[in-house]
Amino acid sequence: MAFDATGEEVPDRIVVEEPLQIVVDGHSVAITMRTPGHDEELALGFLLTEGVILSAAQIRRIDTGSKENHALVFLADGVEVDFSRLTRHVFSASSCGLCGKATIDAVAGILPPLESSGVFSSDVLLSAPALLEVDQSIFSRTGGLHAAGIFDREGTMVVVREDIGRHNAVDKVLGHCLNAAIDLTQCFLMVSGRVSFEIMQKALAGGIPLVAAISAPSSLAVEFAEKSGQALVAFLRPPKFRVYAGARRISFKEVAQTP
Amino acid sequence: MAFDATGEEVPDRIVVEEPLQIVVDGHSVAITMRTPGHDEELALGFLLTEGVILSAAQIRRIDTGSKENHALVFLADGVEVDFSRLTRHVFSASSCGLCGKATIDAVAGILPPLESSGVFSSDVLLSAPALLEVDQSIFSRTGGLHAAGIFDREGTMVVVREDIGRHNAVDKVLGHCLNAAIDLTQCFLMVSGRVSFEIMQKALAGGIPLVAAISAPSSLAVEFAEKSGQALVAFLRPPKFRVYAGARRISFKEVAQTP
Repeated sequence: MAFDATGEEVPDRIVVEEPLQIVVDGHSVAITMRTPGHDEELALGFLLTEGVILSAAQIRRIDTGSKENHALVFLADGVEVDFSRLTRHVFSASSCGLCGKATIDAVAGILPPLESSGVFSSDVLLSAPALLEVDQSIFSRTGGLHAAGIFDREGTMVVVREDIGRHNAVDKVLGHCLNAAIDLTQCFLMVSGRVSFEIMQKALAGGIPLVAAISAPSSLAVEFAEKSGQALVAFLRPPKFRVYAGARRISFKEVAQTP
Repeated sequence: MAFDATGEEVPDRIVVEEPLQIVVDGHSVAITMRTPGHDEELALGFLLTEGVILSAAQIRRIDTGSKENHALVFLADGVEVDFSRLTRHVFSASSCGLCGKATIDAVAGILPPLESSGVFSSDVLLSAPALLEVDQSIFSRTGGLHAAGIFDREGTMVVVREDIGRHNAVDKVLGHCLNAAIDLTQCFLMVSGRVSFEIMQKALAGGIPLVAAISAPSSLAVEFAEKSGQALVAFLRPPKFRVYAGARRISFKEVAQTP
């Protein structure tokens, strides 16, 4: 129970935040503060976007039911992960940034180049915010939670997830698509807030050619998008948006180009 | 240069995001993605709120001018820091969360109890958002940046800082106050967005008895505030706010109580 400005009792409105510990074959690799729900997707998306795994097939099973606030990940037979490397790397990120990266040089990251012919029409981009909002909770619409959504070239929303951590929301939608074997090279990612360098990095790990955000881009996000060949659309507030990188991936006609 | 939704060129609006590497006596202890500016305050606040130092006096000098995107921290004579512990700990936080904390048990943290008699009037709390906004940039007001401010019991704003990282903004205002030897036990912290567990933890490290936020609190933030004896005020949108913990620290009269 909470109190209002006059000292009267009122119902509280709280965003749930709890730690999730991700354990891979018995090794604790990360703890992230997250909004519970879709923990399997979160673990899967996290392991992919942090470069720990390359595909969903490398994981045999993710158990999120046996131990509270834990995702127990079991690798498929024959899959090898260098835990000494992983520990350093995952400590460095944990869906939050560049914590612990040994040097600034490491910021650039070592990710495969983008292989996508994806081109998206401006109309499809402009229709996305309304679709995202339909599936957003009140908390997300009012800034209490972050939302992320994946849309295809026709503008159909594939999945939307919310989380107290902006990177977790992205990990969850990527984890979902990885599980469902969706071709992300023909999809775009939309986020409810700002777009940072890390969001672009996670999108690239998933092979996504375009990221759209309701709010501002960061300078490093723009630089990263330019280098990686990704498109970056920000301030996506119909009927307007701004393109900061990769304008060639946007068709400014009403009819989408064939890639 | 950016492009608008019709493909026309428009001026861009980008929030600057660059890494800052914090080096203590030659040891690289953390990298945080931040908005450049007030880097010395950021380094100082970070080292305090992450438990690396206990007071500003433990630091002899912070050099932010010699090497781009680096804060070179030199400890005072006789001050000892266990770098093996520090590496683990700082990797765990880096102003972003609980990345890399070895176990969930560590979430509770090991901070000294709050020693503050601070009581704040509801009128003072309600006057804070307008004061913060005066000093906020357009980016901060529109959600592109996070802002944090320190206010005293009379409602005077001591300092306000903005950053692309919400925890960095908090570290900067705390670093400023630590430098200026301001008694934080009689001040409150206000943040422009949500209030997470970590914001409460950083405030506690600074000895701050009350945290106010424009947006929602997280469940762990409320739990942490209850355990630590801190007050937590959220949805601070005049003429309303909600108190989630430590209501005894708020005077719901027009005249502030004497502590």
